[in-house]
Amino acid sequence: MQPRTTSQLATPALLIDLDALNGNLRTMSLRHPGTKLRPHTKAHKCTNLANLQSQYGHKTFTCATPREIIGMAAAGVGQDYLLANEVVDPNRLSALAKVSQSARVTLAVDSETTVMAAARAGLRDVLIDVNVGLPRCGIAPALAGQLADFARTQKLNVHGVMGYEGHLMMIDGHEKRKQRVAESMQLLARAAQDVGGEIISAGGTGTFDLHDETCINELQAGSYALMDTHYAKLNLPFDQSCFVLGTVISKSTDWLVIDVGLKSLGMDHGNPSVQGFDVMFCSDEHTTLAPKKDSVNINVSVGDKLRVIPAHIDPTMSMHELAFLVRGDEVIDSWPIDLRGW
Amino acid sequence: MQPRTTSQLATPALLIDLDALNGNLRTMSLRHPGTKLRPHTKAHKCTNLANLQSQYGHKTFTCATPREIIGMAAAGVGQDYLLANEVVDPNRLSALAKVSQSARVTLAVDSETTVMAAARAGLRDVLIDVNVGLPRCGIAPALAGQLADFARTQKLNVHGVMGYEGHLMMIDGHEKRKQRVAESMQLLARAAQDVGGEIISAGGTGTFDLHDETCINELQAGSYALMDTHYAKLNLPFDQSCFVLGTVISKSTDWLVIDVGLKSLGMDHGNPSVQGFDVMFCSDEHTTLAPKKDSVNINVSVGDKLRVIPAHIDPTMSMHELAFLVRGDEVIDSWPIDLRGW
Repeated sequence: MQPRTTSQLATPALLIDLDALNGNLRTMSLRHPGTKLRPHTKAHKCTNLANLQSQYGHKTFTCATPREIIGMAAAGVGQDYLLANEVVDPNRLSALAKVSQSARVTLAVDSETTVMAAARAGLRDVLIDVNVGLPRCGIAPALAGQLADFARTQKLNVHGVMGYEGHLMMIDGHEKRKQRVAESMQLLARAAQDVGGEIISAGGTGTFDLHDETCINELQAGSYALMDTHYAKLNLPFDQSCFVLGTVISKSTDWLVIDVGLKSLGMDHGNPSVQGFDVMFCSDEHTTLAPKKDSVNINVSVGDKLRVIPAHIDPTMSMHELAFLVRGDEVIDSWPIDLRGW
Repeated sequence: MQPRTTSQLATPALLIDLDALNGNLRTMSLRHPGTKLRPHTKAHKCTNLANLQSQYGHKTFTCATPREIIGMAAAGVGQDYLLANEVVDPNRLSALAKVSQSARVTLAVDSETTVMAAARAGLRDVLIDVNVGLPRCGIAPALAGQLADFARTQKLNVHGVMGYEGHLMMIDGHEKRKQRVAESMQLLARAAQDVGGEIISAGGTGTFDLHDETCINELQAGSYALMDTHYAKLNLPFDQSCFVLGTVISKSTDWLVIDVGLKSLGMDHGNPSVQGFDVMFCSDEHTTLAPKKDSVNINVSVGDKLRVIPAHIDPTMSMHELAFLVRGDEVIDSWPIDLRGW
């Protein structure tokens, strides 16, 4: 039986505040309507959530893994998928080629090897992935045109370019961040000119409002829907809509322990946050909390439930099988996190 | 079809080196034979691996979540399970009570609330969880006897005490660590005297050889089987037997990128390691590597595979669906990581 209130949930349990989620989706869709936004499914790995994004007008999606595309297509959500990542595995590329018979599947490529792997598997649509400053995937901007020419010799349709200015998401200060993004996107613009095609795709939640004057015509943002304490530092107009619910299982004089630990929280951005408490440390299945000195809300007993705010939403989502949709403490629905894995 | 070599595996893929694993299990079973070791399943979450531990003579197991016990019992591995963690959820406790009809299920309790929850659910066997210095679960040593008395009024069988000296695992220097463990175990010994019962359970991989003169009669170690770079710092007689295999998907002048990222690696102990390379950073689906300056092995191409050594094995295991058993590059078998979740 579906629990009706959060107090009935077995913990750790992933909660999504439906009103906050809708608010975030609305805010973003007003700023980047329709195909101006290509929501990134890697941030939530949930076809139900992607379906809600499509109801806000977005029918094109960004994915990070073949399984995300295969799952989205199987669920019938969206009709145009960009795999914003390099893949050389022939079996996975063949599976994507199968999906491409009934939906648009575009693959990022950044080398002759990835171009040839795509062509051999029967994929037809690619973007040239361009390095715009983050030391990760992407070909040097000056070489992008040459790779596009090579891709065309392999009978691939080159639809344009993508880049990801991930190194600039957390630059302190809005104006400074905007300036650095503009410089980074000049690299992408140069590559776009050499490559040709109709798509110039880049960006993320941290730079969602910094592209008005750049060359891009679609934004790849994902974390805006659920948010985390890391992105919250930027004072974006998106509210925290995702929490991990925990139960107090132990209480001592100076601390208490909840059953949410580092197996249910992405930890690469450090400790999570809990309102009214300082996080002392996380273990596999536990987080030890000390009441904040100025906190009046310390009347917590064993069995009580507390909400934990993740420091990094993307890996947190991929640790859970299910998310519970809530309004306040009422449980409205549950969504499987069905795009996990690779 | 089961891949026959690691080169055929889709990545990221969890690899377990079968010879190294057997070596670790043998080393530990010689030091702590039979019930002297209560292997912790939370470190691997895999009934096949637990079954191999039972072939080395260990029939009693430690678990961290109800699902681990339920899964172990369903797989018929072991016959005596200790849930070394507090649980108040009535549904999960009832599920454990059901398992306890055909196997010994002992629950850790550290408060009147957890005692009453266990009794109400029909569980009969408990240990008093004692705080031995780690600020987490466990009742203060001086109060343990009193809680045991209360548990007996609730018709529970109190089999003894457990503690976990987790704060001492990484103390620098073998002798200093041994001294601190001895002091910590004096707290447990005092509680054991007040509580009564036949079990005094504590310890972990980092203190596996420091208990010859302490009061404990069983060691709860788990990470020794697979190991990680964190425990490797202690120069223990256990070899790294677990790796995450990645494929090189992109290569630039100064770095290369593999498709193993922070969604396939526990990150709370920091970055993983890759032989011959410096890890620049991990993203959700990527790790960027730079060849070490003194490395001669930099002839790596897109499509090549590299082994990543996790910094923390327990959360790494819980991110994967499957582990591939290997001997060198030969794939011998695959094991589901079937005890994931809570």
